[in-house]
Amino acid sequence: MQVAVLTEPGEFAVEERDEPTPAADEVLIRMREVGICGSDVHYYEHGHIGDKVVEEPLVLGHESAGEVEAVGDAVDDLEAGDRIAIEPGVPCRRCAHCKRGEYHLCPDVTFMGTPPIDGAFAEYVAWPADFAYELPETVSLREGALCEPLSVGVHACRRGDVGPGDTVCITGAGPIGLVMMEVARAVGASDVVVADPVAKKRELARERGADLAVDPTESDLAAAVREHSGDGADVVIEASGAKPAIASTVDVARRGGTVVLVGLAAEADVPLDVLDLIDSELDVLGSYRYANTYPAAIELLADDAVDVEGFVDFESPLGDVREAFERASDPETVKGMITL
Amino acid sequence: MQVAVLTEPGEFAVEERDEPTPAADEVLIRMREVGICGSDVHYYEHGHIGDKVVEEPLVLGHESAGEVEAVGDAVDDLEAGDRIAIEPGVPCRRCAHCKRGEYHLCPDVTFMGTPPIDGAFAEYVAWPADFAYELPETVSLREGALCEPLSVGVHACRRGDVGPGDTVCITGAGPIGLVMMEVARAVGASDVVVADPVAKKRELARERGADLAVDPTESDLAAAVREHSGDGADVVIEASGAKPAIASTVDVARRGGTVVLVGLAAEADVPLDVLDLIDSELDVLGSYRYANTYPAAIELLADDAVDVEGFVDFESPLGDVREAFERASDPETVKGMITL
Amino acid sequence: MQVAVLTEPGEFAVEERDEPTPAADEVLIRMREVGICGSDVHYYEHGHIGDKVVEEPLVLGHESAGEVEAVGDAVDDLEAGDRIAIEPGVPCRRCAHCKRGEYHLCPDVTFMGTPPIDGAFAEYVAWPADFAYELPETVSLREGALCEPLSVGVHACRRGDVGPGDTVCITGAGPIGLVMMEVARAVGASDVVVADPVAKKRELARERGADLAVDPTESDLAAAVREHSGDGADVVIEASGAKPAIASTVDVARRGGTVVLVGLAAEADVPLDVLDLIDSELDVLGSYRYANTYPAAIELLADDAVDVEGFVDFESPLGDVREAFERASDPETVKGMITL
Amino acid sequence: MQVAVLTEPGEFAVEERDEPTPAADEVLIRMREVGICGSDVHYYEHGHIGDKVVEEPLVLGHESAGEVEAVGDAVDDLEAGDRIAIEPGVPCRRCAHCKRGEYHLCPDVTFMGTPPIDGAFAEYVAWPADFAYELPETVSLREGALCEPLSVGVHACRRGDVGPGDTVCITGAGPIGLVMMEVARAVGASDVVVADPVAKKRELARERGADLAVDPTESDLAAAVREHSGDGADVVIEASGAKPAIASTVDVARRGGTVVLVGLAAEADVPLDVLDLIDSELDVLGSYRYANTYPAAIELLADDAVDVEGFVDFESPLGDVREAFERASDPETVKGMITL
Repeated sequence: MQVAVLTEPGEFAVEERDEPTPAADEVLIRMREVGICGSDVHYYEHGHIGDKVVEEPLVLGHESAGEVEAVGDAVDDLEAGDRIAIEPGVPCRRCAHCKRGEYHLCPDVTFMGTPPIDGAFAEYVAWPADFAYELPETVSLREGALCEPLSVGVHACRRGDVGPGDTVCITGAGPIGLVMMEVARAVGASDVVVADPVAKKRELARERGADLAVDPTESDLAAAVREHSGDGADVVIEASGAKPAIASTVDVARRGGTVVLVGLAAEADVPLDVLDLIDSELDVLGSYRYANTYPAAIELLADDAVDVEGFVDFESPLGDVREAFERASDPETVKGMITL
Repeated sequence: MQVAVLTEPGEFAVEERDEPTPAADEVLIRMREVGICGSDVHYYEHGHIGDKVVEEPLVLGHESAGEVEAVGDAVDDLEAGDRIAIEPGVPCRRCAHCKRGEYHLCPDVTFMGTPPIDGAFAEYVAWPADFAYELPETVSLREGALCEPLSVGVHACRRGDVGPGDTVCITGAGPIGLVMMEVARAVGASDVVVADPVAKKRELARERGADLAVDPTESDLAAAVREHSGDGADVVIEASGAKPAIASTVDVARRGGTVVLVGLAAEADVPLDVLDLIDSELDVLGSYRYANTYPAAIELLADDAVDVEGFVDFESPLGDVREAFERASDPETVKGMITL
Repeated sequence: MQVAVLTEPGEFAVEERDEPTPAADEVLIRMREVGICGSDVHYYEHGHIGDKVVEEPLVLGHESAGEVEAVGDAVDDLEAGDRIAIEPGVPCRRCAHCKRGEYHLCPDVTFMGTPPIDGAFAEYVAWPADFAYELPETVSLREGALCEPLSVGVHACRRGDVGPGDTVCITGAGPIGLVMMEVARAVGASDVVVADPVAKKRELARERGADLAVDPTESDLAAAVREHSGDGADVVIEASGAKPAIASTVDVARRGGTVVLVGLAAEADVPLDVLDLIDSELDVLGSYRYANTYPAAIELLADDAVDVEGFVDFESPLGDVREAFERASDPETVKGMITL
Repeated sequence: MQVAVLTEPGEFAVEERDEPTPAADEVLIRMREVGICGSDVHYYEHGHIGDKVVEEPLVLGHESAGEVEAVGDAVDDLEAGDRIAIEPGVPCRRCAHCKRGEYHLCPDVTFMGTPPIDGAFAEYVAWPADFAYELPETVSLREGALCEPLSVGVHACRRGDVGPGDTVCITGAGPIGLVMMEVARAVGASDVVVADPVAKKRELARERGADLAVDPTESDLAAAVREHSGDGADVVIEASGAKPAIASTVDVARRGGTVVLVGLAAEADVPLDVLDLIDSELDVLGSYRYANTYPAAIELLADDAVDVEGFVDFESPLGDVREAFERASDPETVKGMITL
């Protein structure tokens, strides 16, 4: 089978490898659609994310969907031909985090396309059957692959307990910010304010239904939110990782409101106004990946409650992976797909 | 001013009364739209609901909206001409329930149109300004009046924590059941199964988007839900008050699921399968009226996330209140309005 | 090794069997202390509990603790000689319930001493290492065994969100009711009212710190709770399984309060006052076994925050298992232990 | 009557004033015990806290208890002679915060002893009856006064959802930190680690039951907590306001854990490691004053579940208020009381 291997920063090799053999509790998947995530691009450009370093040639990719080719002996709820979305992180199933249902916090997660685990830019992958979710007919394989970023949105909106009537402010209108808009609307948020310094992204946010799109480098975001909604945002979802955006969240939230931090900052330490955080009695909540989101994400797609295919700017075959990554690294690109 | 007074069961008198004078913290409201609720009809027909007995002539009506005519001295956030929806229950503001934010459980609530408190079938009403909510231009006065039943739906869906991807089963497709459908969809529920023995109501539920509408006298509701959704309902909302429907909820819910009881049974004691309730570790939650729902209800309407005007079968002027109540008591009527 | 086998209702055989061999992720345990649970006694007397029937000779027992004798190849956090408490239910680790952290609701739980799974009345048992919890020096093996009923109490108090200042009413002063008292106190409950028709049990409850112990066949429990605490119980924990007790819970709880149902009724259908349940907006919550409780139970014991050894009426060697069960079936016995 | 008035920073005048007359919903209280809070001392020393400035002579004091001298016409649940604790913040009862039960976030709170509202260092105060809580015989007036700092602890432990078996790390062993210890224990926390750079305070924390007391300027607090409890703290309560302590909380908490910020920093902006906050998916929660805590605080005292009288270092009569404030400003003083 063919795989795209990151051999060193900036270099891919498309290689032939043996097809994997599924273990008893695994399925063998014929990959069809794999999204290019910002983290894939970061590994491609820098060879590492923080202290996760690509030391050996690595297959990237973790936003994926395909068809079941074969099933292990112990698998009885999937069969060859089933169309599935793949949840890329598989936990140990034994630690306290796993037992509490927060399996995404398991310290021993195996996560696709994160060194040293190979990912989804491959014709075939073997993966635990219980992390492969059958897609209904009305959900495309592309949507199945995009259940991964959609899950990030579902998890963040659950963390922030976004609900009917809420004013939600989303900082950052990249793919994750746009997904947040979709999910926030789907769970009843009424006013959605988006902040992004890039005009084209604000425009896209407006087209997709933002009630207000603010350039935070030009206007005071907190003031703009208050002018729009009276009382500050019920929930602020930080999806940019930009230091000034993170710092602004405490001011943007209403008294008693919630801040959900999703975007990863380039630097660890960001000054937060803790006096305001206490005086306003905020909840400032980290949101890391997701757990127990795939079934909900698939239902939202089946119900046309969210649109994720609309984010896709281009698709490329596996052989053009390098060009695809170059294009994906353009700041104006929202989402590129590799189709196999 | 004109008011419609229930003088005895089955009898209304349209009388002239003096306009009320608003207290310092009240607004004087020129009523425009008042819905006829099932409880109004029950007082009309029987002269009491349980131990709440109409002993003196009573003005009914608690689903209302109108225009501010004048404001008390201490009111500074509303002014004459503002279009408002009126929340009909005003608590004591002092007891432990009020302080905990569950003011609907205050034992000293003053509730419009419930003996001995006069209600909204009147040209003018004086009411505390903080229980009058300004309507945005895009929300009609009729929608404003229907914020009351909509609030019942918002509260029940909050109680049941209905969220994205959930399968929700609603027993009863009367006005409350239909409102539940609207709100459940608005907060992300994917599969909505409705049960009602009346064919016309099932049809209406289907037209309004129920994924499945079941006649529980003909089919096994729990089996139908499982066939449809695999695992039982994540949330069951009982909106009929029918004894067999209430009893069935425990079986319809999935293991670990939630039952929200809204519909008032004719008899108090309903046998529940407590062994199943424990074995499935269900949450069986009473849902009584609502608290803190009007702002969310108005936002849902402003956002076109729910449709309540579509329930209205007819409107009548105040002078025709008796005919209107007769028509409202027809089981096929969903909602009638008095317009003033 | 010796095991005590229930060969038919009322009959035990003490047999020799081969020691089990631990799988890679298991530990081999030298059993030391095993409690006799009411469910063990029920199997002994009736040969079944509901539709769970003892069809083959069965080793009972699931309240157990012992010493690690040997560990499987993949076990690295326990070693021979460690003193451990054993959590008796091991889930599939793969289903939606397991992934959500509610693994006790997994439909494929393997539970010790429940047909057809052999239990703990045996000199050696092999068990998954992650369901064996190391005991600190200050916690005895007997306390370790009693982490099982203690877990039932921790889970129920978590379900009911018992907290500081709460008035808690516990119906039933058998071993589970007494454990509830211990845990409710440990998490800050201030007033604990216990109801039991047996004078000796009420006396025991009083000795162990109940603020009030009521005979519900003589006095009106709800009235007694209101006289004591003014407003009804914040949390009612039903630990008797008696139909009148279950039915009374709705009345005993305060408006906005919580009922936790733990005790299994002899019959499924119990009439509940659903009008009151709705009017008081109660949460009526099933509580089934436990999940994620062993670490907390062990900490409570290490901290002397609860006393469970004090419940033990007698201990017997494995060879006297039949006599021990006879004695355990006396209604005045709270807890008997088999020591090995 | 006599009152102690802060006339300018560092100066008190003991004056005669007219006794206040209670309004219809108020009680007139004969003050007996008033604690000196750190914020009182701050006003005494600096004449302001942040932007709250003492512009007119001000009566300080908000930790108070006394006896009912007279009641307003509308008060029927208290009478002359009742011993009461006084909750010092009275909200507007009308805004969205008040209606949601988070009345401490009401922007129009009237708070005793905060400019321009006179406080409790006075022989008589009139105060809304529903913010005066009757004390049972077993709770002293001094304990009643100390319900105020105790409430800060109850609220913070509720915010952090401290529960049985939790490891709690408290940074700062001043009066608030010590109260946190008391409440955390009372709700079941097993391991309590306290951090303070002052040796005497660490010693006091140890005497009062801290499992470990760390000097964070000498040792790595996060490492010490992990060595003690394995996995980081379930809940970190920041009670010092010290910048390095605030910054350390993110590292001290376990993955999936909670940080509660209570102590007010001298400067607003404190750098937090947001990458770690996200990667560990922490909840970082502001905790501001308290709401709905007095009944629980009184129950905890009545139950001897907490000790607050033990904090008191000295008592002084009202006439010696200046000396008392000088003594209270000594960093080694935990709590001083004015008795009237």
